[in-house]
Amino acid sequence: MTETNYSCELATFVSQSQWVDLPQHVRHEAKRSILNFFGTALGGCRDRAMETAISALAPFAGPKNATIIGRPERTDILNAAFLNAASGNVFDFDDTHPRTIIHPTAPVAPALLALAEHRRISGAELIHAFVLGVEIECRLGNAISPGHYRRGWHITSTCGVFGAASAVGKCLGLSAEQIVWALGNASAQSSGLVETLGSMSKSLGVGNAARNGLLSALLAENRFAGPDFPIEGPRGFARVMGDNPELSTLTDGLGQRWEICENTYKPYPCGVVLNAVIDACLELRNNPQFALERITSVSVEGHPLLLERTDRPNVTTGREAQVSAQHSVAVVLLFGAAGVEEFTDNAVAHPDVLRFREKVKMVESTNFPVGAARVTIALADGAELSVRIDDARGSQKRPLTDQEIESKLRKLAAYGAPDIDPEPLIEAIRTLETAQDASVCLRLTRP
Amino acid sequence: MTETNYSCELATFVSQSQWVDLPQHVRHEAKRSILNFFGTALGGCRDRAMETAISALAPFAGPKNATIIGRPERTDILNAAFLNAASGNVFDFDDTHPRTIIHPTAPVAPALLALAEHRRISGAELIHAFVLGVEIECRLGNAISPGHYRRGWHITSTCGVFGAASAVGKCLGLSAEQIVWALGNASAQSSGLVETLGSMSKSLGVGNAARNGLLSALLAENRFAGPDFPIEGPRGFARVMGDNPELSTLTDGLGQRWEICENTYKPYPCGVVLNAVIDACLELRNNPQFALERITSVSVEGHPLLLERTDRPNVTTGREAQVSAQHSVAVVLLFGAAGVEEFTDNAVAHPDVLRFREKVKMVESTNFPVGAARVTIALADGAELSVRIDDARGSQKRPLTDQEIESKLRKLAAYGAPDIDPEPLIEAIRTLETAQDASVCLRLTRP
Repeated sequence: MTETNYSCELATFVSQSQWVDLPQHVRHEAKRSILNFFGTALGGCRDRAMETAISALAPFAGPKNATIIGRPERTDILNAAFLNAASGNVFDFDDTHPRTIIHPTAPVAPALLALAEHRRISGAELIHAFVLGVEIECRLGNAISPGHYRRGWHITSTCGVFGAASAVGKCLGLSAEQIVWALGNASAQSSGLVETLGSMSKSLGVGNAARNGLLSALLAENRFAGPDFPIEGPRGFARVMGDNPELSTLTDGLGQRWEICENTYKPYPCGVVLNAVIDACLELRNNPQFALERITSVSVEGHPLLLERTDRPNVTTGREAQVSAQHSVAVVLLFGAAGVEEFTDNAVAHPDVLRFREKVKMVESTNFPVGAARVTIALADGAELSVRIDDARGSQKRPLTDQEIESKLRKLAAYGAPDIDPEPLIEAIRTLETAQDASVCLRLTRP
Repeated sequence: MTETNYSCELATFVSQSQWVDLPQHVRHEAKRSILNFFGTALGGCRDRAMETAISALAPFAGPKNATIIGRPERTDILNAAFLNAASGNVFDFDDTHPRTIIHPTAPVAPALLALAEHRRISGAELIHAFVLGVEIECRLGNAISPGHYRRGWHITSTCGVFGAASAVGKCLGLSAEQIVWALGNASAQSSGLVETLGSMSKSLGVGNAARNGLLSALLAENRFAGPDFPIEGPRGFARVMGDNPELSTLTDGLGQRWEICENTYKPYPCGVVLNAVIDACLELRNNPQFALERITSVSVEGHPLLLERTDRPNVTTGREAQVSAQHSVAVVLLFGAAGVEEFTDNAVAHPDVLRFREKVKMVESTNFPVGAARVTIALADGAELSVRIDDARGSQKRPLTDQEIESKLRKLAAYGAPDIDPEPLIEAIRTLETAQDASVCLRLTRP
């Protein structure tokens, strides 16, 4: 049946891990992820999916101890985990673990933050548990990628629930046996389909990953027991939800490599493959020869995957625009920006955008790796301007700086939660490992 | 991409269905299912999984408007749906839809009953919505069986969430478009693994099916929108969670055949395949030549599947005993009964049971269809007593009578909720279609 007891090994790793085991750069990357998460949650907290979910859940919510990031309402900690995960991910502007396309932080951090409003957790404890949760989540993803996502699983949701369960289990001081139970409780609740992307339903999968991960660990603390082999068992997660799981990757180099160090942060609120296209357009716009009114056509060259994912000339909503190369080229060349406001329904309906995007043609070329692109502008006088980008901003080779992530948070706060002052929040995250009470971050997001 | 819009067809069917469309025998079968459900929920309401879940959820629960069947505590309606579904299924003593092995009622009825404590729903409305919910749930199951369960999906949970969403959507008076959204919201939350069976984690899958189905419809009512093709889309439920879905079975004969009429009710709280074995043992025990002290060995003959599922001579817990032929034979021949008390941890540890089960041997024979069995007792004087059962009690050919289901409820109430009087409850369900307020049933289960 089972050769190695992977569930037990992972749980033992989580329960025995010490703060001193975490190298400084690992702790730092965790804070960058948390900073980026607060930015996207502040930006997303007034999305219509959020408004709707908050009002639908309110009549059944429990004690109002917990913060909904960026908003005045309070709710119970399970609902807070759900809602904060949903807002962090609602624009798909959150972080990306490139090997799996998991957005690692949205399921894990909100579960921990909600717990921190229920029991005292120090900043260092939260960072430590967060790193471990991301580790479990991404290692599960590694073991079942790329088949799992390709089949249609929204991997952020399906793996995220295990990450949240492990992280909360660590903060609760659970034994290895109890963490196996938490993983088993998570296995019963792992869900989320790619078909829901682009609709509000997506947020249910991501929100539940945080909520149900938190619940899984709270139940395990109460000795609500799960199966012995939730991950590797014959009818367990890896075999049922993965078509060809590589179980050995679950534990290879555990404690030596850290998945959080692979994390990347998006500069633009759209599909990652569009980053190079947007970079190229921004660079073109800074060229002294650039002249908007003289552009006759724009050609976007890239890997077949770029066309498969983003060749969408006739999008009608902001959500669809996030994966449209035509729309992205139009807004960047027209307005010189690619922020949340450029991917709203209003931006999509803007007459200039509708007109301009007609000029954009896509060209497939196997000469480009995934993530690279060339944009070429043809001008009325026959001249051409062309820029090729191989490593886009935000990629592992060109990561955003700390200052860029802070600036992203400021812009997103101004967009979604203009009543809050982002500076104390940024400072609190910068010094999080010294905080006695990790929930301070949440309080600083209240309007 | 998509030939027929199955999600829309199913949703339109649910939204347009009228009470008068339901033949009398369909309404009657619905009441038998609900009666059987209340019995199993009363029996299960003090199981350790229930005690643990109730205490773990209590600190975060909302307004205490809703009944936990058989118990004094109140909770919010989402938690009530969760807990009542869990207790209805915790012993696996609930109903079975043979083609799919779905337990149809546990996910659907508790979602409706919880809603009935929030908004006024008549008995007829509840029965009507229940029939429709079971219809959607079982048709989804038909379309992906048998591959889905075989792969490791706990089909009651995975399909149940759609049944609950549809049923609640009907009661809320949702449009067909909104019911498609409810199905989409359910698709993001469909989960549950066979690996968790035998552990408390199982109850999370079943409980969430009811809770999340209810939530899916409440969100849809608030215009929380899902994808257009949640069932049949290329990354939708049927294709991601079914290996070879037969989509046409989703709508064939819709409104003409009713899946609720296929429902069966268990006479014994154990694996369905053991029913014939237990029937045979009960019949043997009534034979005048039966003499317990003179039995030298017992042979159980059956289909290879019977052995695969139940040849478990050395079980140590009540849960394991539910799928042990050796234990079942021992308790029935020793005590003449196969009720909940015969499948507790205490019953498993009983010295007489431990001794007797050593005498039981299993014999594989392809001469028996699944569900049939022969039990042969060898006596010390060389005599043999033998009984073969082809149609076990509770099978589609030998359904339990209404009186037998009522009697089952009485016994289960006496076991799990001895403080309540089952008679008014039985009467309320018997006349449910005339009730102004369907929640009356719940009030009658309060101690």
